[in-house]
Amino acid sequence: MLPPMTGLRLDYAGCLSDRVGEHGLDAAALEAAGPKLAELTRRLTQTKGTGWERWRSLPLEPLRSQHLTAVKSLVQQRGPKTDHLLVLGIGGSALGNIALQAALNPITYNLMPQQERGGPRLFVLDNVDPLCVGQVLDEIRRLDPGLKRTTVNVISKSGETAETAAQFIIARSILKQALGKGYAEHIVAITDPKAGTMRSICDAEGYATLPVPDGVGGRFSVLSPVGLFSAAMCGIDIEAMLDGAAEMDTQCSQESPTGNPAAILAWLLTTLGRRGKTNHVLMPYCNALYPLADWFRQLWAESLAKRVDLDGKEIFAGFTPIKALGATDQHSQIQLYREGPNDKVIGFVDVESFDRDVEIPTDLQVEDLRYLQGSTLSTLLAAEKRATEYALVESQRPNFTITLPRLDAYHIGQFIQLWLITTAYAGLMLNVNAYDQPAVETGKVATFGLMGRAGYEQWKSTVQQTLG
Amino acid sequence: MLPPMTGLRLDYAGCLSDRVGEHGLDAAALEAAGPKLAELTRRLTQTKGTGWERWRSLPLEPLRSQHLTAVKSLVQQRGPKTDHLLVLGIGGSALGNIALQAALNPITYNLMPQQERGGPRLFVLDNVDPLCVGQVLDEIRRLDPGLKRTTVNVISKSGETAETAAQFIIARSILKQALGKGYAEHIVAITDPKAGTMRSICDAEGYATLPVPDGVGGRFSVLSPVGLFSAAMCGIDIEAMLDGAAEMDTQCSQESPTGNPAAILAWLLTTLGRRGKTNHVLMPYCNALYPLADWFRQLWAESLAKRVDLDGKEIFAGFTPIKALGATDQHSQIQLYREGPNDKVIGFVDVESFDRDVEIPTDLQVEDLRYLQGSTLSTLLAAEKRATEYALVESQRPNFTITLPRLDAYHIGQFIQLWLITTAYAGLMLNVNAYDQPAVETGKVATFGLMGRAGYEQWKSTVQQTLG
Repeated sequence: MLPPMTGLRLDYAGCLSDRVGEHGLDAAALEAAGPKLAELTRRLTQTKGTGWERWRSLPLEPLRSQHLTAVKSLVQQRGPKTDHLLVLGIGGSALGNIALQAALNPITYNLMPQQERGGPRLFVLDNVDPLCVGQVLDEIRRLDPGLKRTTVNVISKSGETAETAAQFIIARSILKQALGKGYAEHIVAITDPKAGTMRSICDAEGYATLPVPDGVGGRFSVLSPVGLFSAAMCGIDIEAMLDGAAEMDTQCSQESPTGNPAAILAWLLTTLGRRGKTNHVLMPYCNALYPLADWFRQLWAESLAKRVDLDGKEIFAGFTPIKALGATDQHSQIQLYREGPNDKVIGFVDVESFDRDVEIPTDLQVEDLRYLQGSTLSTLLAAEKRATEYALVESQRPNFTITLPRLDAYHIGQFIQLWLITTAYAGLMLNVNAYDQPAVETGKVATFGLMGRAGYEQWKSTVQQTLG
Repeated sequence: MLPPMTGLRLDYAGCLSDRVGEHGLDAAALEAAGPKLAELTRRLTQTKGTGWERWRSLPLEPLRSQHLTAVKSLVQQRGPKTDHLLVLGIGGSALGNIALQAALNPITYNLMPQQERGGPRLFVLDNVDPLCVGQVLDEIRRLDPGLKRTTVNVISKSGETAETAAQFIIARSILKQALGKGYAEHIVAITDPKAGTMRSICDAEGYATLPVPDGVGGRFSVLSPVGLFSAAMCGIDIEAMLDGAAEMDTQCSQESPTGNPAAILAWLLTTLGRRGKTNHVLMPYCNALYPLADWFRQLWAESLAKRVDLDGKEIFAGFTPIKALGATDQHSQIQLYREGPNDKVIGFVDVESFDRDVEIPTDLQVEDLRYLQGSTLSTLLAAEKRATEYALVESQRPNFTITLPRLDAYHIGQFIQLWLITTAYAGLMLNVNAYDQPAVETGKVATFGLMGRAGYEQWKSTVQQTLG
């Protein structure tokens, strides 16, 4: 039942019909899928590190060392000069950064004093909401009025993404006003190493830059400088993270599915998905892991949800990723997950051993609460998860659990690479290109039109005609 | 098309077949539903303020004044003595508190200095994750080592919810250790006014208390002291909020559907839901409103997702509420919303006029970005929303928009009451009891069993037998 994963463990017993009846899959079917899965593994091994699958090489040599050297050198340069790090990006240029910070630094990180943080305060602006952007910029200027201890890290491959471009123009202007000529030293751009709008700006203004590696799409880029720079600035052990990712890559290169958790996960989710379980929930039992569910949400949605023309018939492929948080959402979503439409697969994520625990004291003498006293929060959290898993099984709701032995950079690296490779398998299984996002284009060009960008004028009237 | 709502506006043109073809509803069908909707309005008017619908009276006299007086008196007492407010609760005892704070105070609130905040720092602990709880408790003790300026606000109707009880035992013990005999003055409990475990503790220890009003379920309680106390402590205008809710209640008491946005919303969502649009997305274009989507998530899921036995046949009613954030999730979920399964209704929420804006300066000379320069973030955000709405219509994806003229307490009160009443209508339309949550029970008792609570021993072996 449990593939011999090093570190991370996958338990998918809850997806099998033994446990959840007709809503599950037969263990025999998984066995029968073995040769097909092995064939997909061979295909992925052939394309690994090439074309749109260059992201698989990120934790491996030579890219690993190239990126570590470049990132560390910039961290050495900017780290001692930075108390406030402002990341500008959106989508794949922000979700990974937010997720790594949440997973591996305290939830109170920005409130902590400098000496306890081990890195600058981190603000990731991934929207153009004027209230939110204004409040964050105000706060940074309050904490650092001259912006002498502030670094802006703009992340955009092309520089043309409207949201990031707008943020950047604003942040650059503020830095320039506060710092005068030296402002360019306070900007680190992560962008295309050769071409594009942002590249031209960097070259003209002399910013320090790191590459968005060639052939690595936004949602596959967290283990590149895109995610590594802000993480390393905030004291995260990026080498251990890449080690974990590399180890997972080795596991997921095995042809035998029993040793290859990505092949199994992709098979479970696409097979159940085709049988009507189209909503895929990721529900960590750990606040720190919740933003990783957001990262998963982009990966799973943009990679797999594609319109496919099959013999002139339009098929809408893909699944709806949903994030939930245990135990919190037991008091919000479990009624739905048990008695709502049986259209979901619930993926639990738990941590086997927390680095810190909180004891529940014994000094309150109340009979009804005695069972809690003398126990710990980690014991209670584990019981809640197990009880919820039981309750789902009892309602025949398919579910699986990914367990992190500890919450550390190595296992986060494993987790990330596991889902990236799972997505690659799922793309092949669904026969879609996991690396494009054609449906996002319309909104982009319509925005250009509404904002009056030259060459996009016709979109303004098209929108007007449709929406009034 | 636009019902004459005072303040909040609902635009549902995107749900009609005029715009989204066969995936929408006929305007004639809504007209034909008029008499049925009027009948439901009469039923709700009869039960309003009684039984499980007592929540509808919260913004009305006499409850309004009773609660305002009690809450304000406690705020007057604890406010000047509090720099750190720690709320303990989960589900309906936390989601509203978090949502109000996010909607009506700056995103940087806890980082701001006391004099700019106008209230204590707020920490809402809605989980038993040892890492998160430990980090928050550490931080409060670092900021206020003697806990002299800390108030703990525990929210639990019965006192038996395991998560809140555990948090409470921990927080009480810490207060007691730091403050000695006077610790009870630092606790404000919101609980059943007459009976229950927490009531007994309050009576024995002499805490200040506020009532969870009789007949008001957790997810319907945000406009009671449950949500009002922490909001008022943090400077939110709770009277304006209740005013907005009362005004919306009046609108939603109108028999004519065209003037009753709750009747229309419920009809749209349940009718589309029955036709396969079972995923209901709420997507505010405003970071401050994002946690209100979490509040909606509980309301919509727990109230409507019910197993119904119809002539011996098991029906799983209800819909899956999903939260998303604009413009951010355009770069994460719009590929799915346009080319994934057409099983969603997308509900946009936007703010017509932000109280502050950020200009995009003109000092960067780059041709490709000229269209942004001289504009503002609010203009860009509005264009993004409109472009996305257009892109959804173009893919025949039903959608609607709720517009808040301004982001303030009055309109948040309207928004809350609108969704509460919409849920009441939807319960009647689906023929389910919107006020229970029977499927949550199994997980609760199984947790008791796993934690060794007397009387629940058999659950431990039942879980063991099922999960191994």
